[in-house]
Amino acid sequence: MTDPRSIIAGTESDRPDVVAATTAATEAFAAYRATGPEERAAFLEAVAAEIEADGEAIIEAAVAESHLPLARITGELGRTTGQLRLFAGVVRRGDHLGVRLDPALPDRTPLPRPDLRQRQIPLGPVAVFGASNFPLAFSTAGGDTASALAAGCPVVVKGHPAHPRAGHLVATAVSRAVARAGLPAGTFSFLLGPGFELGQELVADPRIKAVGFTGSRGGGLALVAAAAARPEPIPVYAEMSSINPVVVLPGALESSPDSVAALATAYVGSLTLGAGQFCTNPGLLFLPTGAAGDAFLAAAGEAVAAATGATMLTSGIAEAYRSGTAAIDGAAGVRVVARGDAGGDDAPAPQLVEATSLDGPVGEEVFGAAGVVVRYDDLAGLLPRLEQLEGQLTATVHATDTDADAARALLAVLELKVGRILFNGWPTGVEVGHAMVHGGPFPSTSDSRTTSVGSLAIERFQRPVAYQDVPDGVLPDAVRDANPWGLRRRIDGELE
Amino acid sequence: MTDPRSIIAGTESDRPDVVAATTAATEAFAAYRATGPEERAAFLEAVAAEIEADGEAIIEAAVAESHLPLARITGELGRTTGQLRLFAGVVRRGDHLGVRLDPALPDRTPLPRPDLRQRQIPLGPVAVFGASNFPLAFSTAGGDTASALAAGCPVVVKGHPAHPRAGHLVATAVSRAVARAGLPAGTFSFLLGPGFELGQELVADPRIKAVGFTGSRGGGLALVAAAAARPEPIPVYAEMSSINPVVVLPGALESSPDSVAALATAYVGSLTLGAGQFCTNPGLLFLPTGAAGDAFLAAAGEAVAAATGATMLTSGIAEAYRSGTAAIDGAAGVRVVARGDAGGDDAPAPQLVEATSLDGPVGEEVFGAAGVVVRYDDLAGLLPRLEQLEGQLTATVHATDTDADAARALLAVLELKVGRILFNGWPTGVEVGHAMVHGGPFPSTSDSRTTSVGSLAIERFQRPVAYQDVPDGVLPDAVRDANPWGLRRRIDGELE
Repeated sequence: MTDPRSIIAGTESDRPDVVAATTAATEAFAAYRATGPEERAAFLEAVAAEIEADGEAIIEAAVAESHLPLARITGELGRTTGQLRLFAGVVRRGDHLGVRLDPALPDRTPLPRPDLRQRQIPLGPVAVFGASNFPLAFSTAGGDTASALAAGCPVVVKGHPAHPRAGHLVATAVSRAVARAGLPAGTFSFLLGPGFELGQELVADPRIKAVGFTGSRGGGLALVAAAAARPEPIPVYAEMSSINPVVVLPGALESSPDSVAALATAYVGSLTLGAGQFCTNPGLLFLPTGAAGDAFLAAAGEAVAAATGATMLTSGIAEAYRSGTAAIDGAAGVRVVARGDAGGDDAPAPQLVEATSLDGPVGEEVFGAAGVVVRYDDLAGLLPRLEQLEGQLTATVHATDTDADAARALLAVLELKVGRILFNGWPTGVEVGHAMVHGGPFPSTSDSRTTSVGSLAIERFQRPVAYQDVPDGVLPDAVRDANPWGLRRRIDGELE
Repeated sequence: MTDPRSIIAGTESDRPDVVAATTAATEAFAAYRATGPEERAAFLEAVAAEIEADGEAIIEAAVAESHLPLARITGELGRTTGQLRLFAGVVRRGDHLGVRLDPALPDRTPLPRPDLRQRQIPLGPVAVFGASNFPLAFSTAGGDTASALAAGCPVVVKGHPAHPRAGHLVATAVSRAVARAGLPAGTFSFLLGPGFELGQELVADPRIKAVGFTGSRGGGLALVAAAAARPEPIPVYAEMSSINPVVVLPGALESSPDSVAALATAYVGSLTLGAGQFCTNPGLLFLPTGAAGDAFLAAAGEAVAAATGATMLTSGIAEAYRSGTAAIDGAAGVRVVARGDAGGDDAPAPQLVEATSLDGPVGEEVFGAAGVVVRYDDLAGLLPRLEQLEGQLTATVHATDTDADAARALLAVLELKVGRILFNGWPTGVEVGHAMVHGGPFPSTSDSRTTSVGSLAIERFQRPVAYQDVPDGVLPDAVRDANPWGLRRRIDGELE
């Protein structure tokens, strides 16, 4: 068992570590949630600065452990610190506190109206499960941690066993920021363990009040079940699986053959980016029948054939890719269009298939650079196929002005299936901002009402409390008459 | 099976009715969610007007079926229509659409930023379970229905078998408004059945996308389990049980003996109001030891002894009250302070007990006019007891200026336990406004992140969608450049 005051597990954590971490988080909660906007924002910025201070070592570890390229990991470090600073801005602005005031109406008949004030408060200690495929931006100090800390929740991270060293380095940096800010050590803890049990114990711990997770459907659903089985069930925000349908409308193929080939090459670029290891990987593409579609498919096949597999995050992920693609290849109605070269034992070949049906394995996510193309004759044939899809993180439409009517019809269907709809681009690359939604209907996530990327993510870790006729001297600062934090408030329903 | 175009069950519904209603709701969804703010607001106002048009008959039925007094039911009708009009105002204002725009930055390096727009969309058809104790305001066209319709979700109500006639009359009025507005009949449906199975079938139906419920813990948890067991789990907003602790601080008893007696009488007034059949009934009161506390308890006992039971909503509820109070009376450390008179077979006597511990039945909700008083010596003894309470809808503090330090300490503990904290009042009486929270941590509700009363309730039935580089001519009106609905938007994180 590690020191219960820091709980930065350098090796494997055990059950006493879980209890020590969640106990410390609970003890830290009162002091941490009491921090004002400036103090909390400065702390988030200090976390970013401490990560940057160790940036070289963190990047080196993450590259070595993930097999992802240096440029990608360097960018991801910037994304991680940028995300922390984005939330610092959100905390300073204070709109997430959602302050609402309905002033007393003492003379109202038949009954006077009391004074009512509402604000959002943090839920309590949050368990965060790092993702394998973003060792920095969706892991130890990634979006879940940043948004939970921004909301005022202490965080207990279960580091991903695929990048223990990077996780440990980041955790150490966060803990330095905690100490620098004079916050209780339990504001942030880091546990490490390869197994399923450690995570289950963490989610079952009564001191944990919410969970953030990015990973597989099986892993996410296990945490959802564990959270629902607690005497006090808690929310789980699990970002799970998605095959991110792309619809190419006929207009997008009406341009020159070179443009069609360029579009196909760009598609394969998104499909094979980072060995295809993105939640937003475009695993499914709907393509018009006819000559232009044939040309697109031929060009995409050439690009896939020319591609070489990159080393995947872990041997287990590479093995899952091989068995997943083998299941697709063996399914009825599937024709292999092209296969690239393997780049090594854990760098299996990218592949592209054409399928006549999405039944069975063809409709399931294979994590990696595996594309499925389905042809369609017209919108009437396409829409029912889209309506049958499970919930997805994204849907992409390639269209020109001539497709506008079809695009509007598609949008109305896709809105009910996905969290983000994009036109004439590719779903890999998730902008961190205020308008992003990285979420979507089940099973892309366990809770469609939110996002795990972007500033709206802070709302996952809050709940509203109303104060009725509470004397001003007793009220929390956020809802006091004097408005010491300068918050934008909703008064009688109208924003100030 | 009733006519699938209206589904207003005059008698008992069956499984084909469920399928017909949810199918009609799904078919209505596209047209209903496409309504603009003015059209949807006018529809909500038309629902209110149609209910008022039948007001006399509705009130007569509700009084006869609920045994609640005419004045109370008349007030409840006003609350019901007022609630619908409140949401009409929310819809017209449009802030619930949560529009966020992050404009494109084509020159950003190393990568340009896409144009991103976010809005909230309705989840889909919602199942609403009416409550027994508010036959109008928490039932057929109550807060759940009003907020779901406001969000753009068709509603399928399972009417409460305790007030079938009132439910049917209200449903008929709503359906007239649907027809008047030219909306598809499936925008609103009403099913009726006494059993557990009809509700389970409704929640299990794949076309239902969210559930609103007010009732018992057992009923709520059964729906939560049914929703979680679906192939596609859905959110359930179940408002369940609460004993609504009241803390009397010493300062509140320092005034004249007459004032102390008046406070005790007011407490018993809240305890026995409506035969105690409120989710917010003050079932538990913490009282200082000592002479002033003794005087309060004596006065409260006198008021209870002078009270006569009113007829409860159903014979089953009266029976549950009798067995619940018997269990409390028989528990260790319980002393019966006073018992009033029964008012008839289904009008059991109000009662007040003093208890030394909250273990066992004493700590569980008994629906009705059953009060438990627990004495405390000082704040150090009180706070751990409050920390051990389950989640509650409300907590009440009686205090004066001399109690300010204690009140602040209490507030920090109570905030984590409840959805609403009120001072120097009584929790019965839930104001419908913008700042109200009628919700709270489990098990007072199944989802603490929201409220079932007040305008924030609309957010329960929405989820965010992002639009990336979608051409303006394809975008939904809410997020178009021209802002045709005149919405307040968040641009780059800053509210316009």
